[in-house]
Amino acid sequence: MWRVGLNVGIYGGSGYAGSELVRLLSGHPEVGGMSISSRGYAGRPVADVYPHLAVKDSFLEPGRVDASALDVAFVAYPHMESAGVVRDLLEAGTGLVVDLSADFRLVDVALYNEWYGDHPAPDLLKEAHYGLPEIFGAPEGRLVANPGCYPTAAVLALGPVVKRLKVSSVAINALSGVSGAGVKPKANTHFVSVNENVSPYGLVDGAPRHRHTPEIEALLGHVGTVPEVTFVPHLLPISRGELETIYVHLEKGEDLPEAREVLGWYAEDYEGWAFVEAREEPPQISHVANTNRARLSAAVDRRAGKLLLFSAVDNLLKGASGAAVQNMNLALGYPEDAGLEHLK
Amino acid sequence: MWRVGLNVGIYGGSGYAGSELVRLLSGHPEVGGMSISSRGYAGRPVADVYPHLAVKDSFLEPGRVDASALDVAFVAYPHMESAGVVRDLLEAGTGLVVDLSADFRLVDVALYNEWYGDHPAPDLLKEAHYGLPEIFGAPEGRLVANPGCYPTAAVLALGPVVKRLKVSSVAINALSGVSGAGVKPKANTHFVSVNENVSPYGLVDGAPRHRHTPEIEALLGHVGTVPEVTFVPHLLPISRGELETIYVHLEKGEDLPEAREVLGWYAEDYEGWAFVEAREEPPQISHVANTNRARLSAAVDRRAGKLLLFSAVDNLLKGASGAAVQNMNLALGYPEDAGLEHLK
Amino acid sequence: MWRVGLNVGIYGGSGYAGSELVRLLSGHPEVGGMSISSRGYAGRPVADVYPHLAVKDSFLEPGRVDASALDVAFVAYPHMESAGVVRDLLEAGTGLVVDLSADFRLVDVALYNEWYGDHPAPDLLKEAHYGLPEIFGAPEGRLVANPGCYPTAAVLALGPVVKRLKVSSVAINALSGVSGAGVKPKANTHFVSVNENVSPYGLVDGAPRHRHTPEIEALLGHVGTVPEVTFVPHLLPISRGELETIYVHLEKGEDLPEAREVLGWYAEDYEGWAFVEAREEPPQISHVANTNRARLSAAVDRRAGKLLLFSAVDNLLKGASGAAVQNMNLALGYPEDAGLEHLK
Amino acid sequence: MWRVGLNVGIYGGSGYAGSELVRLLSGHPEVGGMSISSRGYAGRPVADVYPHLAVKDSFLEPGRVDASALDVAFVAYPHMESAGVVRDLLEAGTGLVVDLSADFRLVDVALYNEWYGDHPAPDLLKEAHYGLPEIFGAPEGRLVANPGCYPTAAVLALGPVVKRLKVSSVAINALSGVSGAGVKPKANTHFVSVNENVSPYGLVDGAPRHRHTPEIEALLGHVGTVPEVTFVPHLLPISRGELETIYVHLEKGEDLPEAREVLGWYAEDYEGWAFVEAREEPPQISHVANTNRARLSAAVDRRAGKLLLFSAVDNLLKGASGAAVQNMNLALGYPEDAGLEHLK
Repeated sequence: MWRVGLNVGIYGGSGYAGSELVRLLSGHPEVGGMSISSRGYAGRPVADVYPHLAVKDSFLEPGRVDASALDVAFVAYPHMESAGVVRDLLEAGTGLVVDLSADFRLVDVALYNEWYGDHPAPDLLKEAHYGLPEIFGAPEGRLVANPGCYPTAAVLALGPVVKRLKVSSVAINALSGVSGAGVKPKANTHFVSVNENVSPYGLVDGAPRHRHTPEIEALLGHVGTVPEVTFVPHLLPISRGELETIYVHLEKGEDLPEAREVLGWYAEDYEGWAFVEAREEPPQISHVANTNRARLSAAVDRRAGKLLLFSAVDNLLKGASGAAVQNMNLALGYPEDAGLEHLK
Repeated sequence: MWRVGLNVGIYGGSGYAGSELVRLLSGHPEVGGMSISSRGYAGRPVADVYPHLAVKDSFLEPGRVDASALDVAFVAYPHMESAGVVRDLLEAGTGLVVDLSADFRLVDVALYNEWYGDHPAPDLLKEAHYGLPEIFGAPEGRLVANPGCYPTAAVLALGPVVKRLKVSSVAINALSGVSGAGVKPKANTHFVSVNENVSPYGLVDGAPRHRHTPEIEALLGHVGTVPEVTFVPHLLPISRGELETIYVHLEKGEDLPEAREVLGWYAEDYEGWAFVEAREEPPQISHVANTNRARLSAAVDRRAGKLLLFSAVDNLLKGASGAAVQNMNLALGYPEDAGLEHLK
Repeated sequence: MWRVGLNVGIYGGSGYAGSELVRLLSGHPEVGGMSISSRGYAGRPVADVYPHLAVKDSFLEPGRVDASALDVAFVAYPHMESAGVVRDLLEAGTGLVVDLSADFRLVDVALYNEWYGDHPAPDLLKEAHYGLPEIFGAPEGRLVANPGCYPTAAVLALGPVVKRLKVSSVAINALSGVSGAGVKPKANTHFVSVNENVSPYGLVDGAPRHRHTPEIEALLGHVGTVPEVTFVPHLLPISRGELETIYVHLEKGEDLPEAREVLGWYAEDYEGWAFVEAREEPPQISHVANTNRARLSAAVDRRAGKLLLFSAVDNLLKGASGAAVQNMNLALGYPEDAGLEHLK
Repeated sequence: MWRVGLNVGIYGGSGYAGSELVRLLSGHPEVGGMSISSRGYAGRPVADVYPHLAVKDSFLEPGRVDASALDVAFVAYPHMESAGVVRDLLEAGTGLVVDLSADFRLVDVALYNEWYGDHPAPDLLKEAHYGLPEIFGAPEGRLVANPGCYPTAAVLALGPVVKRLKVSSVAINALSGVSGAGVKPKANTHFVSVNENVSPYGLVDGAPRHRHTPEIEALLGHVGTVPEVTFVPHLLPISRGELETIYVHLEKGEDLPEAREVLGWYAEDYEGWAFVEAREEPPQISHVANTNRARLSAAVDRRAGKLLLFSAVDNLLKGASGAAVQNMNLALGYPEDAGLEHLK
C-alpha cells in the first residue's frame, strides 16, 4: 500500500494496540505507506487475523522492513523487548519512533529496574519525550514514550489538581476492559472467566503492586509534590475502556475546593487541546469508548473531607494507539487530530 | 400451594428481590404455603412473568392475603411504601415480618428523615432488629430490618476492623450489577445504556449522596467509632453481584496491620457462620454470584499508608432475599442455612 | 452549526437511528448545517442525552425547522407516523427526503395495509425509490425508502441467488442486537432481561409474523421468483449488529452450486460497490459492527440438499443510518462513501 | 470427604463439565465420598482453581483413585481419550460408568470412525445405553453414554415429531454459550473475540460438518425415519445455555399440524418426567440457564409450509453434568431429581 506521504512502520501489528494502529493509520491523510510487521503472523494477510480491518496487506517479518526508509515507526512490543528494537530503529535512521511499551516512560533507571527488571537501553532514557502532550507539550526529539493507559487517565485528572493544591493521599480505583490484558489467550481472559464478573488484580503478597503506579507518581512529580499513590485496577466484562475513580485527601490547612472550581482548572489547562474535556456529569465508559477522548469530572465529599476525581479513556485509543497517532501528528507538525477527526 | 409447614406471604413478589424470595422459599423445607402478592401483576400466573420460576401460583392482590394467618411475611416494597404494610401486618398478627426496604434500618428517625423523607411509622423503629446476624446476632422480636446490599458488604468488611483499630477515613468504591437498580425499565437500565459501559452514580450537585451511606455509618457506629464514609457506587454491565473495594486510613499512631492479621480477625469474628468467608485472594463477583455468600479479603499498601478491604456479595441473595431467608431461619430457630444449602 | 454545504434536517434525532445520523452527518464533508429535531427532547442539548456525541446543538421542536430550506431531510419516526411528515417535507420543498420508517418500502398498498394498518399516504408510494443501491441502483426522485435492517441483510444475500436459481424454500434465522428494538425502555430491553439470554420473537399465535417478512419477499420478487419466506428473528445480548443464517432449498431439478460459485456471483454483482463484500469464511457480527459493511458468505450442505447463506450488517449503520447517508450521497451525486470512509 | 453413601469418582474434574459435577455431587443426598481427579491440576485444591466451589478437596492424580472401590465414575475427558479410561474402570469393577464424551454415543462404529477417527474400544459400543431417559428410558447396564448438549436439545424437540410425522427436511440453527467450547483458553474464547459478537462455526471447506450431526441423525433414527439433518451452530456472547430453532419440512401429503397439537405430543411423551416441559411461548435461554430443564415450543408457518420447533437447555446441566447425575439417579433407582431438586 503506497501513496505519496509518510512511510510508517508498525512493529507488533498483531496485538490489539498494533491492530488499532493499522486501522487508524490506514485512514490517515498524511500516511503514504505502511509496513505492518508481526513476529507471530508474518506472511499471513492482516485481514485473516483481523477480519474487521479492511487492509489488503500481509504481516511482514520485522527484519524485512527497511528501517532506514521509515519516516515513523510505532513499536507495540512488550516491555523489555521493545527497547532493543527502538535502539535499532534510531540507529538505522528512522525519523521518529513512538514506543508504546513501558521501556522509556520512567526517566529514573533505578525505578525502572525496581519495577520491571534491568533496563535494556538505559542510555536512551534521557532522549525520550513522555507523550502526554496536554501536560508535557508536543513531543520533541526522535523518541516518544507513549504513556500507559492507566497513567493517561490518572495524570490528566490529577495533574491540574496537584499543580494547585497540596495533596496528602491519593487512591485510584481503576476499572478496565479486557483488551488491556492483551490478545494472548489466558485463563483470566477466557470469556467464561470474565463475563458476569469483576476481579481486582495487580496485588502481590497482599499489597497493590501494579507497574503503572510508579509511572503515575513520577509523572505527577513533574507537575507538583505528590504522595505515594495507591492504585488498584479491576478487570471488567467489557472489551475496551477505562474508568478511574480517584479519592484525594488534601494536606491539613488546605481547603477543599468546589467541584466547579476543579472543572474550571481543567477547562483552563486543557484549553485548545482537542481530546480532553471536563463535564459536570461524571464520565461513563461509553462516553469515550471508540474515541480518542479523555473525559474528566470532579466531586467533593465535604462531609468526609475528600476530593473525588473521575477520568475515562478508551485504553486502546487515548490510552494507546490514538495517543500514539496524536503524538506523531504533534511531533511532525500536523494538526493533533489529523486522521483522528472522527474520534473526537 | 399448601404443605404442612410455615405459611409465608411475599409482598412485592414481582420485583427482583420478590421473585428471588419465591424461588428460595418454594424450595425451603419448612415452608408449607406461599401467598405471593403483587400490586401490578395480580391475577397473572407467576410463571408468565418469570418463566424461570417453576411455581404454579398466580400473583394475588395484596389485600386478599389473610395476614393474620401468616407465620412470616416478607415485604419487598420501596422505602416509604413499606412501613405502612409492615404496621398492618404486625397489627393483624403476622408472626414475623422481614422488611427488605430501608424503612426500619436506621434507628435514628432524624437521620431517616434527612435522607429519605418523613418516616411513615417512627414508633416502630425501636422494634426492628437489623438483620445482619454475623454482626448483630439472630433477630429478636417480630420485625427484621433486612440490610441494604451495599451496607451488607461494607459492614461485614469494616466491622471487624473498626472494632479493633482507630480509623480516620473510609472510601468505599462500590460496583453493582443492574438488578440492584430494580425491575422497572428506565433509560439507565436499557441494555444499550448499560452494555460495554460503567457509570458512577449516586452523586447530587457534585457530591456523593447515596442513601446507603448513613446506613453504613450508623451500623458501623454500633461496632466502633467511625468517621464519615465516602461511598461511590458504579453501575456495571452484569446482572447480579457487587464488589466493594474499600480504602481505609488509620488514625495517627495506629500501626497498619498485616493483611493476614486482618484475615485472622475475619476468621475469628465469623467463625461458625455459614455464609461469610475471608480468603487471601481478593474476591471476584463470580465467586459469590448465585450464592448467599459474602467473600472478604484484605491488602495493605504500606508505601502509601492504607489498608484495603475487598468484599463481594450477590446483591439479590446475601444482599437481599438470601439474607431475608437466613434471618427468618435464625428468628424461628432453624439452621441458618435451611433452604439455602446449595447457596453456600 | 452552519458551514458552507448541504443544509440537512434530522427528524427523530433522539432515537438510536437519529443519533447515529447526527454522528455521521456532523463529520460529513458536504454537510454545512444540521437541524436536529426531537418531539420528546426539544430544547435539551444533544450532548446531554447522548454524551458520546460531540455536537453542540440542542434538539429543536420539529415544527420550528424550516423545511423549505432543507436540502435533505432524514425522517427516523415510527411507521404510520412518518408518512405525514414526509408529505409535509415534500410539499414544503425539501430537496430530498430519506425516510427510515417502513412507510414507503412496500409498493403494494394492500400488502402494507395487511401488515401495518391503513397506509397514511398511499398516493406517495409510487414516488419512493427503495434505497438498497447495490441491488436497485442509485436513488432517483425526491423520496428514498430506506430499507429495513433485516431485509438489507436478507436481500443482499438472497438477491444474486434467486436471480440465478429456482428456489423452493427459504428460512431466515436472524439474530439482532438490542438497539434494533429502539431506545424506549421496555421490559424486554431491560439489561437483566437481555443479558445472558437469547429470545426468539416476532411470533403471533404460534406463527412467525415479523413485519420484515413481506418486505423481504416483495423486494426479492423484483429480482426473481421467490417462495414465501420463513423469517424468525432472535434478540441477542449485544448492542448492535445482525447476523442472518439462511437455509435455502432449490426446486427439483435445480443443481446445488458450489459454495465458491455463489461467492463468485456476489463478487460479480457487487463489483464496484464499496460496502458489500463476500468472503469464504462466514461473517461474524464483529466483522461489521461499527461499520457500514455487509459481509456475505455461502456454504453447501450436499448431504442434506441445502444451500446456506450468511449475511451480517450493523443494524444502525448499513441497516439504517449508514445506508441513509449512502443513499443521500448517491442521490446527490457524491461518492457513495462520502463521510463514510472510516466505516468501510 | 467421606460420608455414608455412594463413593463416586470424577475424571476430568477441572473442566467445566467436571466442575459442575463436583458442585452437583457435593450436594447430592446419596453421595458419601468423592474422588475428584485431574491430569493437569493434581495436587491443587479445587477451590483454588474454582473459587466458586465450596469443596475442601484437592484434585487427585487419576491413577491414584481406586477404581474398584467406586460405585459410580463420571468421565469428562475429550473423545478418543475417554474410551480407554472407561474400559479400565469397567474392568476394575466400578459399578456404573457415566461417560460424558462422544465415545459411546454412536452404536455404528463405522459412523464413529468417519466423524471422529478410529474408535479406541469398539467392542464396548454395544454395552452403552444412550442416556436421554425421556426418550430411551432409564439406563440399563454399567455404561451410560451421556448425550451431547446439542443432540439433547434436538432429539427432545424432534423425537415426538418424527415419531408421528413423515419429515422430509430438518435444519437446526443452534446457538451456544462459550462454556460449550471448553475451559482451555483459545483465540476464539478470548473475551474480546466473543463479546459483542456472534460467529457461525462447525463449517469445513464450505460445508456444515459439526460432529453432533450424526449423533442427532442416529438417535432420531431409533424413533422414526429421518432425512439428513443440516446443523449449523453459532457461538454466543453468554457463558451458558443453548437455543435451537429448528426448521422442519414434511413429506408431500403430510399435513402441517397445529402448534398446540405439537405441544400436546410433548405433554404426552414427557409426562412424568421432571425436567422436560413444553410451553406456548418459545423458550429463552434465561428460562433454562442454571437449571437441568429442557424447554420446548412449536410454531407453524402455514404461509411457507414449515413446522418450527424451539428447544433450550443449559449446556452444562441438562446438556452435560445435570443429565449425567440424572442418569446416575435413574440407573441406581433413585428419584430422577435426587440432588437436582433446586434445578427443576
